Amino acid sequence: MHNQAAKSLNPDRYFSPDNATRNAARELYQSVAELPIVSPHGHVDPSLFADPHAIFGSPADLFIIPDHYITRMLYSQGIPLESLLEGDHRNIWKIFCENFHLFRGTPSGIWLTDELVSVFGVDEMPSTTNAERLFDIISDKLPSPEFSPRHLFERFNIEVLCTTNAANDLLQQHQAIRQSGWKGRILPTFRPDSVVNLDAPSWRSNIDTLSEVSGVDVIDYQSFICALEQRRAFFKSMGATATDHAVLTPTTAELTLYDADVIFQHALKGEVNTSEVTRFTAHMLMEMARMSVDDGLVMQLHPGSLRNHNNIIFKKFGSDKGADIPIQTEYTRNLLPLINKYGNDSRFTLILFTLDETTYSRELATLAGHYPALKLGPPWWFYDSLNGMARYFDQVIETAGIYNTAGFNDDTRAFLSIPARHDVWRRASANWLAGLVVRHIIDMNDASEMIQDLAVNLAKRTYKL
Amino acid sequence: MHNQAAKSLNPDRYFSPDNATRNAARELYQSVAELPIVSPHGHVDPSLFADPHAIFGSPADLFIIPDHYITRMLYSQGIPLESLLEGDHRNIWKIFCENFHLFRGTPSGIWLTDELVSVFGVDEMPSTTNAERLFDIISDKLPSPEFSPRHLFERFNIEVLCTTNAANDLLQQHQAIRQSGWKGRILPTFRPDSVVNLDAPSWRSNIDTLSEVSGVDVIDYQSFICALEQRRAFFKSMGATATDHAVLTPTTAELTLYDADVIFQHALKGEVNTSEVTRFTAHMLMEMARMSVDDGLVMQLHPGSLRNHNNIIFKKFGSDKGADIPIQTEYTRNLLPLINKYGNDSRFTLILFTLDETTYSRELATLAGHYPALKLGPPWWFYDSLNGMARYFDQVIETAGIYNTAGFNDDTRAFLSIPARHDVWRRASANWLAGLVVRHIIDMNDASEMIQDLAVNLAKRTYKL
Amino acid sequence: MHNQAAKSLNPDRYFSPDNATRNAARELYQSVAELPIVSPHGHVDPSLFADPHAIFGSPADLFIIPDHYITRMLYSQGIPLESLLEGDHRNIWKIFCENFHLFRGTPSGIWLTDELVSVFGVDEMPSTTNAERLFDIISDKLPSPEFSPRHLFERFNIEVLCTTNAANDLLQQHQAIRQSGWKGRILPTFRPDSVVNLDAPSWRSNIDTLSEVSGVDVIDYQSFICALEQRRAFFKSMGATATDHAVLTPTTAELTLYDADVIFQHALKGEVNTSEVTRFTAHMLMEMARMSVDDGLVMQLHPGSLRNHNNIIFKKFGSDKGADIPIQTEYTRNLLPLINKYGNDSRFTLILFTLDETTYSRELATLAGHYPALKLGPPWWFYDSLNGMARYFDQVIETAGIYNTAGFNDDTRAFLSIPARHDVWRRASANWLAGLVVRHIIDMNDASEMIQDLAVNLAKRTYKL
Repeated sequence: MHNQAAKSLNPDRYFSPDNATRNAARELYQSVAELPIVSPHGHVDPSLFADPHAIFGSPADLFIIPDHYITRMLYSQGIPLESLLEGDHRNIWKIFCENFHLFRGTPSGIWLTDELVSVFGVDEMPSTTNAERLFDIISDKLPSPEFSPRHLFERFNIEVLCTTNAANDLLQQHQAIRQSGWKGRILPTFRPDSVVNLDAPSWRSNIDTLSEVSGVDVIDYQSFICALEQRRAFFKSMGATATDHAVLTPTTAELTLYDADVIFQHALKGEVNTSEVTRFTAHMLMEMARMSVDDGLVMQLHPGSLRNHNNIIFKKFGSDKGADIPIQTEYTRNLLPLINKYGNDSRFTLILFTLDETTYSRELATLAGHYPALKLGPPWWFYDSLNGMARYFDQVIETAGIYNTAGFNDDTRAFLSIPARHDVWRRASANWLAGLVVRHIIDMNDASEMIQDLAVNLAKRTYKL
Repeated sequence: MHNQAAKSLNPDRYFSPDNATRNAARELYQSVAELPIVSPHGHVDPSLFADPHAIFGSPADLFIIPDHYITRMLYSQGIPLESLLEGDHRNIWKIFCENFHLFRGTPSGIWLTDELVSVFGVDEMPSTTNAERLFDIISDKLPSPEFSPRHLFERFNIEVLCTTNAANDLLQQHQAIRQSGWKGRILPTFRPDSVVNLDAPSWRSNIDTLSEVSGVDVIDYQSFICALEQRRAFFKSMGATATDHAVLTPTTAELTLYDADVIFQHALKGEVNTSEVTRFTAHMLMEMARMSVDDGLVMQLHPGSLRNHNNIIFKKFGSDKGADIPIQTEYTRNLLPLINKYGNDSRFTLILFTLDETTYSRELATLAGHYPALKLGPPWWFYDSLNGMARYFDQVIETAGIYNTAGFNDDTRAFLSIPARHDVWRRASANWLAGLVVRHIIDMNDASEMIQDLAVNLAKRTYKL
Repeated sequence: MHNQAAKSLNPDRYFSPDNATRNAARELYQSVAELPIVSPHGHVDPSLFADPHAIFGSPADLFIIPDHYITRMLYSQGIPLESLLEGDHRNIWKIFCENFHLFRGTPSGIWLTDELVSVFGVDEMPSTTNAERLFDIISDKLPSPEFSPRHLFERFNIEVLCTTNAANDLLQQHQAIRQSGWKGRILPTFRPDSVVNLDAPSWRSNIDTLSEVSGVDVIDYQSFICALEQRRAFFKSMGATATDHAVLTPTTAELTLYDADVIFQHALKGEVNTSEVTRFTAHMLMEMARMSVDDGLVMQLHPGSLRNHNNIIFKKFGSDKGADIPIQTEYTRNLLPLINKYGNDSRFTLILFTLDETTYSRELATLAGHYPALKLGPPWWFYDSLNGMARYFDQVIETAGIYNTAGFNDDTRAFLSIPARHDVWRRASANWLAGLVVRHIIDMNDASEMIQDLAVNLAKRTYKL
């Protein structure tokens, strides 16, 4: 039995207990606390905003079912995914509340608490005792207009929100948002993994769709490239400023046109082998960099996740269920071909992410501290956390400085968690800067400029927003 | 010349110097300081307790000769192992005292200080000056009944102590303890490395012994499996709740019965090759997991130590002399076959350890934060230390939570150090929780439950004690 | 626009904001603040001191042009290297001042600030506004005798400064210093990379020079070894106490004399292949260890930097322009042959460095905590920083103790930064020790001895100075 207790958000939360540090952190934080949110990379579903009358479903829809951080943790403690993803939502909510103690000391615990208090005014710890009551309180609020996605978007003070979209996406939701006259700025991001990775599920039919949506008949490598260029142009016309690429390893290597076409033809015939798939992906990263130099779209690279590690879960429930596990990642040698060719070009921006924190000080900070085109993305996924941020600041900045970083991304599917995530970043940034100030490494003048850069400016500048 | 000084144990030792943090840490620590010790994994010799009249030998026997943490450090500074392992014990003790400054800032320094003060009331730093006197003081106490192993076991308030025993061990010491009527709970752990790793020293004769002790004539792979099952059943009947497996890499891969038998037959004929040894070990980890599903014994995996790195030392003095050096370890891909097959099974518990701290946040926390069967062991060996624990908490818990960890093990051969090691863990846990409390990440209600779990409950629950 | 502000050096800079810790750190620091500087490894040009009338050039010569930490950071922000390395020095200085904010939170920022205040009395942050004025202030001072290299050497209180010199160096600058009667102690270090690594630029002509300077006609492997032994003896006669070896990976493996000669003959004919180059380097590390056992020169190993990663920069501007990027490094297995053969020999000292911080706790501390011949060098290059030092202390010392470390090296080309770098180390050491004291892990008696060791004694002892 876990205690139920008020959990009002302390105004100095996440700051050092040291007085001088906390005071400096508070002052710095307050100077950015109310700044609009710039969210340059994430996975929120744009359809939430396409329909002005859209509302969220149940508390389970909002907090549990789509959030693999939550379902993963509950599953790890022996709770069947069936009972979290299927069946009565009130029951799902009860399981969640009964197990809320599992999230102690985790970023999910922090975000959930913030969301309950800030969005719903629920100032108590979910528990077996209050589960039903909390379900009712939240359920009652959700249908009201002030809890609609568009209203929350405005209340959250989001200046711009970038979604992530497949290359074949017609961006109809983004069109609908534009045409509705609503002023929320929601931009697409071009993510071509499903056509560029030859082993992507349904690759062959994705290529057919690509032909269709691009108007370019994709019959060989050259027409494939044309089609991709067409899609990038379309995304750009819809406001996109960036592309995104998920790969297992960040290997880059250029193929000859001839070799690229041989592999592509094999793929069209369904006869491609593993080595060809790997070489083609490595080559396409080079191609994507080349296109970015041309069209100015900022390139994002997210390597290092071994997706769908748990075969039983993948077969029953599909992707994004908390079974993606990181692997060691190497950047110095893998990126050499790509950065040597494009890394000195001022027209190019490549933002690197990692799930291997050992590369922060060894590879990423040293690369970004040299190549003009390289910027480091913020701590990603499991590291979008207080300790993850502290390690990032401590391991990256001495070598790269803050001006070779890309500020913050929330990278979330959970729309409601966006303000909480940016708040954690702003507090962690303020606390880190305060630590430099009290140790006389920088002064408050430095820190007050840097906190503005970290909170908003670096993200806007790097993503050209 | 190093100063000799009183070194009374400060009641707030190892806590943050920050007032608020220290106060919270103290309160949390005090709530568990007197709890019994649960020691679910270690290497204490059970014969210490089999004979009710057993006493310890000299101070050198107690503190130096069997402790590779101590002899390693002294050897690294040019002191010949001969002078530490052989000859006059008073002389060994003098060398140790003269060089006590080498342990400044090390966990050995912390444990030794605690043992001297808490067990022997020796409240001064060993040094050249007091070496002889300290030797006499301790030597005088050792023969008295209150310094007997059984008496210290009770004084240490040990609720249960698990030893580690070879598959062929007849557990006669454990039998003797049971039959003596003494109430100390000392349980065996099944460790089959010497018969499962085909390149173990004396493997062939170990197999003969296995036939003998199991009553199963081991002539092929199938009878080998039967014999192992018999041994596990015997260990279980003697109170064992766990198995333990030391491997260089945690590679897992299932062989067909046919292939397993081919390799086993090669081994019986002394014709096994390196690749076969590796594949067989990887297969046997799968088999051990399968048996654990059946018999409920908790499986422990300790990979990543390159044993006996120093050939000269190994030839002269044998194993466990401080020359085991860690290597990089990979879990995400290596464990995939085993965890995919058994990791979703609620009957199975696999506790993972590591000597490669880079895997904490990248692989171990993400795996344990998903698979129901996986739990993370505490910081091991070189990382059973204040900084090791701080890194563990900071790198593991945000992703895995504390409820996917296995609490604490001391994993020691040094019986006398057990209370000191558990005390360091309890203090480090209290201090870490206090840090979360003062930063308002959790509240004192959370922390007071969590400290109980970390101190005792998680270990008991995970090891089924 | 970045603020211009006074930046006087706070006497408690870099110490913890916690009162008790800061007080202890201050006391410890003050006990070593005025000790002479022992600089056992670095890259200062000895010719600075050979001519008693030498003066430094412009502020750009002094602070920017030769410092790849500075040019790297400016280049990473899109400033062309041409504008930093070529043309009007006043203009170079202006670019630097305009971009001084890039160094916020970096060690370069710390060193530059210290140098400006301590050496030139310039107590304001460089900026667009004051760039010209600061250029004039510094330029006016440089020609005066009190800013001559020799005078600054004395003012900096440098007891000994070791330079790094190619095997073929005739050490004429060192001779000139000796013969001038000036008492500054400037010693050479033997670095044979350009003749030992068969793929070094101009290797063939380096060998011809080696024949010439050694008086040994290098026609085969055996004469090559003789020539190297001659050079080592010469360096030793000139006061050298150490050698230095830069390698991509620390692989060691002994060749037979026959195989070594076959490879060497291939190299002489320009027909050596990559595998032979690698095997020869691995072998030569063993040979260098063997010679160190004989002649007592301390061996330093600096592995893990992939040099000249940026081909465009390398072609235009050559080496050491900030484009050397670290790679993962492995020591446990790579060093096994060398340490097994020589690591137990008390006549041998091998100092290991790393650019892969993951090896601190896993491999380096465990190796140095066992083998008598091994010592760990201080945090190197990107890690010669406050966080780099904090991680080093936290990850190395619990296992290796401080007495298996080699104290501090500045390893710099930037003569002016030497006092600032040693000051950062002394402050970081004091702060780390203070943290142990306030947590009652050591006492002030321990700490006051340890700070002396860290500041000076360990470096002197390990390098035999």
